[in-house]
Amino acid sequence: MDLHTANGSTLLQNIDQWRELCEPMPTGISPATSSDKFKSPVQFHAIASIHFLSEESASRKGSTLKVAARYLKTPGIISLGGGLPSPEYFPIEKVRVDVSQPAGHQATANGSLATIEASKGDVRNGRGLYDLEVALNYGQAVGSAQLLRFVTEHTEIVHSPLYSDWQCCLTSGTTYAWDATLRMLCQRGDYILMEEYTFSSAQETALPQGLQIAPVPMDDDGLLPERLDEILCSWDVQARGARKPHVLYMVPTGQNPTGRTQPAARRRAIYAVAQRHDLCIIEDEPYYFLQMPTTTTGAEQESSSSELPSHESFLQSLIPSYLSLDVDGRVLRLDSFSKVLAPGLRVGWIVGAERLVERFTRGCETSNQNPSGVSQIIIYKLLDEQWGHAGYLDWLMQLQQSYRRRRDGMLQACDKYLPREIASWDAPVAGMFHWIRVDWTKHPAVKAGKTPEEIEEAVFHAAVDAGVLVCRGSWFRAGGASIGDNPLFFRTTFAAAGADAISQAISRLGQALRAEYQLDSSV
Amino acid sequence: MDLHTANGSTLLQNIDQWRELCEPMPTGISPATSSDKFKSPVQFHAIASIHFLSEESASRKGSTLKVAARYLKTPGIISLGGGLPSPEYFPIEKVRVDVSQPAGHQATANGSLATIEASKGDVRNGRGLYDLEVALNYGQAVGSAQLLRFVTEHTEIVHSPLYSDWQCCLTSGTTYAWDATLRMLCQRGDYILMEEYTFSSAQETALPQGLQIAPVPMDDDGLLPERLDEILCSWDVQARGARKPHVLYMVPTGQNPTGRTQPAARRRAIYAVAQRHDLCIIEDEPYYFLQMPTTTTGAEQESSSSELPSHESFLQSLIPSYLSLDVDGRVLRLDSFSKVLAPGLRVGWIVGAERLVERFTRGCETSNQNPSGVSQIIIYKLLDEQWGHAGYLDWLMQLQQSYRRRRDGMLQACDKYLPREIASWDAPVAGMFHWIRVDWTKHPAVKAGKTPEEIEEAVFHAAVDAGVLVCRGSWFRAGGASIGDNPLFFRTTFAAAGADAISQAISRLGQALRAEYQLDSSV
Repeated sequence: MDLHTANGSTLLQNIDQWRELCEPMPTGISPATSSDKFKSPVQFHAIASIHFLSEESASRKGSTLKVAARYLKTPGIISLGGGLPSPEYFPIEKVRVDVSQPAGHQATANGSLATIEASKGDVRNGRGLYDLEVALNYGQAVGSAQLLRFVTEHTEIVHSPLYSDWQCCLTSGTTYAWDATLRMLCQRGDYILMEEYTFSSAQETALPQGLQIAPVPMDDDGLLPERLDEILCSWDVQARGARKPHVLYMVPTGQNPTGRTQPAARRRAIYAVAQRHDLCIIEDEPYYFLQMPTTTTGAEQESSSSELPSHESFLQSLIPSYLSLDVDGRVLRLDSFSKVLAPGLRVGWIVGAERLVERFTRGCETSNQNPSGVSQIIIYKLLDEQWGHAGYLDWLMQLQQSYRRRRDGMLQACDKYLPREIASWDAPVAGMFHWIRVDWTKHPAVKAGKTPEEIEEAVFHAAVDAGVLVCRGSWFRAGGASIGDNPLFFRTTFAAAGADAISQAISRLGQALRAEYQLDSSV
Repeated sequence: MDLHTANGSTLLQNIDQWRELCEPMPTGISPATSSDKFKSPVQFHAIASIHFLSEESASRKGSTLKVAARYLKTPGIISLGGGLPSPEYFPIEKVRVDVSQPAGHQATANGSLATIEASKGDVRNGRGLYDLEVALNYGQAVGSAQLLRFVTEHTEIVHSPLYSDWQCCLTSGTTYAWDATLRMLCQRGDYILMEEYTFSSAQETALPQGLQIAPVPMDDDGLLPERLDEILCSWDVQARGARKPHVLYMVPTGQNPTGRTQPAARRRAIYAVAQRHDLCIIEDEPYYFLQMPTTTTGAEQESSSSELPSHESFLQSLIPSYLSLDVDGRVLRLDSFSKVLAPGLRVGWIVGAERLVERFTRGCETSNQNPSGVSQIIIYKLLDEQWGHAGYLDWLMQLQQSYRRRRDGMLQACDKYLPREIASWDAPVAGMFHWIRVDWTKHPAVKAGKTPEEIEEAVFHAAVDAGVLVCRGSWFRAGGASIGDNPLFFRTTFAAAGADAISQAISRLGQALRAEYQLDSSV
């Protein structure tokens, strides 16, 4: 096997050989580690590093006590240095977790479930590379070496970065990662670029930091590169009272709130604009693996859901990430287990150029430290020891199919219940959101001078009164822009409610729209 | 029972009746909650709220989507609003944890261990108030209602705050809580007040935020109130280029690094100075429960370790916290499970005036969100369901005794191995640190013009060469002050190594000191 020419699938098939090429796993408490220990040796490309660090991040020094920890390598040394509690006082001796198996994986004595377990003495007793003595103690900000290895390998398998000095750092979720990223890259008064409809919480993270939002118009394929270029070319420092923006935040796949997914060509065009204007691209990709073909007929759906594609064709079917296109090291990818395992674990990771990830990691050391050790060891045991990389891909494919069925149910309900005279939509091809467009110009109160905002509010309350909660499009307007000439939008999700509840909820939304618009209420 | 006149012990004994007076536990996914639901109804006192919020914190608005969640209370409503994944897709079905029992608690079939467990359907099936469907999904920034109840009650039992509108918010550890507290209270350019020897990481959190450190001299009882008053009375805004400080950070109990503990009278005196100058006191108290009597003889130690004191006398033995003295709402207490359960859980909490805790919680919503749900449910099951408040106090008392034995072993080793001509120390009465004073004026190289810093470095390296890692006192000098006329100090911990290793390590330190100081090396 020549790993020098390997792609993601080749690496996937040869993971054991790959690991043999790497340094042995450090199994002690809080060992220094990085993705370099686990990356394949094929990655050698130049990188034009980016240079926008905030005063806060640039001035950040390494931790004194962590620097002292390097003396721990002295053979035979006894440490009276770090105030790490002794594992013998941890009241948690053993954790056992019953976990699902991806479809097609061998059932166990426990039915369709498998049991993973971790005890205090596992490493000492040769029962594994990661145990509770390590997981329950203090750790490194970059995350445990064990889980870091998995996400590093996963990153290579899925994204095969084109430059060599990329790194991963575990995070306790993308909300934190985004907050820390802004503090790393921006100063009070700066503008950041966001999609014109953006994840409201991402905006709410930026505003109190004194940042301002420059919204970039979108079409059905997401953010428009020409409009991005225009905004940057015509940036007037005097008029704006701020330097030209250098951070572009996007959810490229199954965007929140619009559900839109940027095709590969769109991504390449946006990346070119980012190069032209030296932008740092933050790709927030919780829904990346929830990509799904456009609506299928009932028959196709039936047959396709019965078997999973090969890993190779699954990997090839994924739209290229910005990380995978990045030749300069200007992309910081925010990844998360929240939508594919469980959000309550509070574990995600970032991937990007070493220079950025190192600053990010230093920041974690005096803030969030590292994700919960219990969450980390459960995910490691599940993904690495129980499922393996191949099994994890099987899980993702299965999840993708589940979300596709839900999405299809949502679309069928919309077809059946929503008044086409005023409501329209595109089928989302990724994620968990369905974005319904409503024509406010046809609302009877327009003649009486009602604004789009007032009509949106009336429809929202009519929906609540009819028994369905949806999100108002205006909540997601970047920079607080008014609705203006745009249509109304309502964000609905097919993630939370079951199929029957979705159908009933959309039926109620249809009733509410008909009542508000004084349309014929017979379906 | 009259809860109006209850103290901590009374509440401890009547916890079930207390809970009956409270609102029922919300058991759904991510319910809005606060300590108010779980506090006893006895707390009604005025509070002079403090007023130093940073621009960032003051400008922070509530989350749009969390505000929308209030419509979820509408009976029969179906939510297509929040993008919460469906629990059926979480691959974790059941968690079982073998946990220690405090000494004296009934052994189980599993020997000295008990088993706690949580499954997805526990709430639905009437098997508990908190389950994996809730713990593994998104949660509230304030923490899960279930664990929040426990820490709220624990706060009343231990600290009985004197004013009514205090709140708790769970954190993912005190490092994060301190970072977020500084961002809430301070602006770039501000000074904060710290003990002259301070936890280096706490200082490293502040510096990149553009904050400066004003060190306050200490004596054997910790920070000196007169010197604090002096610094504030003589604060020269022009000369300092910064407004008068309004934040005082302290580790009052088992201070890191000095191991010193402020007696009650010292705390009252410092609190009075804080009132005079309108300071916000941040009390960082990870070692609060590791209070221990001064050295005992072998015989006393034997007898006292064989039985635990009553809960009432244990609670009465604890030095009053600043929280318990606070009549104004100017104290923010940072609490943590790291030193009493396990740091890898990454769970702590803050307690303080509602006005501050509310701002803190809003900040978490767009940053760290909430601690790991897996960590939360394990701690809840352990502390609330398995041990109860009384059992937790038993655990703490037992832990205190374990640390006392380690501390005593450390002191015996110092007595035996360290050269008294140059080294001296006081027995720490709390925490996990032993602070060893070394006279640099007696070092043979002083005459040759070596600085205290150079001598400290030489001793440090001699110790490493002899096979023991200790921390240099200068690493903890607040504001980067030089050693000056102060003695050298070395921080050692009795937390990490076992008794034999501690003895050997101190013996090595003794050899290193003797060699460095050219003393007679026969012990």
